[in-house]
Amino acid sequence: ISKRLENLKPTVFTKFSLLALKYNAVNLGQGFPNFDGPEYIKEAAVGAIRTVGKNQYARGHGIPPLNAAIAERFNKETGLHVDGETEVTVTSGCTEAIAATMIGLINPGDEVILFAPFYDSYEATLAMVDAKIKTVTLRPPDFAVPVEELKAAFSSKTRAILINTPHNPTGKMFSRSELEAIASLCKEHDVLAITDEVYDKLVFKGQHISLASLEGMFERTITLNSLGKTFSLTGWKIGWAIAPTHLTWGIRQAHSYLTFAVATPFQWATVAALQSPDSYYEDLVKEYSERKDVLIQGLKEVGFTVYEPQGTYFVMADHTPFGFKDDTEFCEYLVKEVGVAAIPPSVFYANPADGSHLVRFAFCKDVETIKEGVKRLKAKL
Amino acid sequence: ISKRLENLKPTVFTKFSLLALKYNAVNLGQGFPNFDGPEYIKEAAVGAIRTVGKNQYARGHGIPPLNAAIAERFNKETGLHVDGETEVTVTSGCTEAIAATMIGLINPGDEVILFAPFYDSYEATLAMVDAKIKTVTLRPPDFAVPVEELKAAFSSKTRAILINTPHNPTGKMFSRSELEAIASLCKEHDVLAITDEVYDKLVFKGQHISLASLEGMFERTITLNSLGKTFSLTGWKIGWAIAPTHLTWGIRQAHSYLTFAVATPFQWATVAALQSPDSYYEDLVKEYSERKDVLIQGLKEVGFTVYEPQGTYFVMADHTPFGFKDDTEFCEYLVKEVGVAAIPPSVFYANPADGSHLVRFAFCKDVETIKEGVKRLKAKL
Ligand SMILES: CSCCC(=O)C(=O)O
Ligand SMILES: CSCCC(=O)C(=O)O
Repeated sequence: ISKRLENLKPTVFTKFSLLALKYNAVNLGQGFPNFDGPEYIKEAAVGAIRTVGKNQYARGHGIPPLNAAIAERFNKETGLHVDGETEVTVTSGCTEAIAATMIGLINPGDEVILFAPFYDSYEATLAMVDAKIKTVTLRPPDFAVPVEELKAAFSSKTRAILINTPHNPTGKMFSRSELEAIASLCKEHDVLAITDEVYDKLVFKGQHISLASLEGMFERTITLNSLGKTFSLTGWKIGWAIAPTHLTWGIRQAHSYLTFAVATPFQWATVAALQSPDSYYEDLVKEYSERKDVLIQGLKEVGFTVYEPQGTYFVMADHTPFGFKDDTEFCEYLVKEVGVAAIPPSVFYANPADGSHLVRFAFCKDVETIKEGVKRLKAKL
Repeated sequence: ISKRLENLKPTVFTKFSLLALKYNAVNLGQGFPNFDGPEYIKEAAVGAIRTVGKNQYARGHGIPPLNAAIAERFNKETGLHVDGETEVTVTSGCTEAIAATMIGLINPGDEVILFAPFYDSYEATLAMVDAKIKTVTLRPPDFAVPVEELKAAFSSKTRAILINTPHNPTGKMFSRSELEAIASLCKEHDVLAITDEVYDKLVFKGQHISLASLEGMFERTITLNSLGKTFSLTGWKIGWAIAPTHLTWGIRQAHSYLTFAVATPFQWATVAALQSPDSYYEDLVKEYSERKDVLIQGLKEVGFTVYEPQGTYFVMADHTPFGFKDDTEFCEYLVKEVGVAAIPPSVFYANPADGSHLVRFAFCKDVETIKEGVKRLKAKL
């Protein structure tokens, strides 16, 4: 293995999904639904597959109608004027969008600011490019941005700051005033902002704000999003990066040589997905609110302190009352003895101890499954 | 754009496919068929899409039946005993397999030997990891390996050699004695071999030999292949890397953070593809032989010197008789004035002048299209 990767752990999601299968556990770990997205999206994929010509290489940065549809939705939401042809790049899931952004835009020795806890691929892709990570920790109960600490994290070597809103694993949404503080630091230090917004349609409280929509930010912001979470089709691996032309150039060059192009039939289906009526998104939130409430209520009854999420399909809880050494020990006990898979959040912290009293549960499962998980927790904890 | 990518040109395939569209040219440039693969493979994808549960994240390194099917076919062909669970990684096309191999296994400053002409993503992904390229040039008419030059290219810093057999763009197949020379140098210098075999089922003359099947080579070889070329479904982006466990570890770690997992329904469909009867492969070669012969005959009639390929769906020809300055000027004239897109091969050479008298045509098009291309060439050259 190369030196750049030798200190990386294997992805925790794979570890716990495999354990969940092995122990026949209710999988409240890795974030994928146990239901599929709408039929009209699936049938759009079927239609493309059955059309000769829609099964060959797509244009590298995306089929034209998808680039246009992504720009159109984003413009409607933000009031910006993004051009799909020159400012949108379709990628193999948001994971590839993250990798292409890092490889295309970040140099060795550059400093990148992350908020801990952070999604593991941020750290891994920054390791690929030999960048230096500076972390600012978001702390329970409300995971607010500690603005003074954030200011102190900026230096002359800072190239970028990465935010994720709504935030995995905490469910936190960055508020307007937090985003404004970040924006003003980015402008002051001439720093790029990378914003992972894959949970932007899963919002229970407050309103999602795209960092790119803030004054003077579009020109320095890379906005990442995907199909999977919003349309319950995580296995299709369609993501995208929106960025001004000068940044899109770097992202597209990296993308050209990481994957070249993305599965053509699913690009056509994503065009159909993005034409969904507003009611689709409203129903989605309604359904997820119910799942969230069932899980949170259950976790409280079991005895957890629960940090209620504003967005995403994850919830963080404190497992201290149950007397385990740390989150890994707790999650291994859960999957093996209780029959419930969850994710130990310490892997998302630069300093693992900061997260070792926590556990992350996913509620992207039908209510019956969540109830079964809660029942098992009640029986064994 | 990051320093590592700033000297890379944008992919030539995109450039000429876009020009082909713009000038309504017959596209004999980028290598994708204008027909689709078998119905039973497409319908297997449809069946997966319509099955709840087959549209969510796959296991990162591939769904178990696909890993097994890839290992089984490879073992049958090579007599090796590859284990699908630990030695196969499913990737987003061979392009991602190449990137994951470089990022997962090659360190900055490592030397990697390439045979020129070489596929552009090899150079680009080696730039991503700051490796140094040493090239050995294959020269017409037969593109034989110059063994003394090859020996001289090895040094104490050589980490890997990359071969592509059958070879894009020349159509050359590496012979057993050439492969043995390469194998013995790899063993002598303790060097890895990366072998891109995506055209292994498109062989007109001679027999494809997998480098990994040679004595003592499996343990140091990464074999790359894909669905797209063999099954005329280039837009599905299913590829894979076969390598011993200690190398697979690095590839999987890189893959985890480049794309995480590959489109699930197309993995199910690839299982169906790999169950194709031998007659599928025989018919494929028969059809491609006819396409090849029509193109070559036509090119000769137009006045090209043609280097007949042993494999792949490409043919190289010498455009000197037509009096153009170089291949780029020639290919731009072709696409704009003649209405035929082809690829200028100089982009595949470390020293572009080595390839500037050549032009690459693709014959992965139905016979009518190829005939139309030839007709246009005859009319205007
Ligand atoms: C790419 S696998 C992880 C899915 C996910 O986003 C999560 O569980 O956090
Ligand atoms: C990935 S696009 C290039 C297709 C191809 O292999 C070629 O034309 O050489």
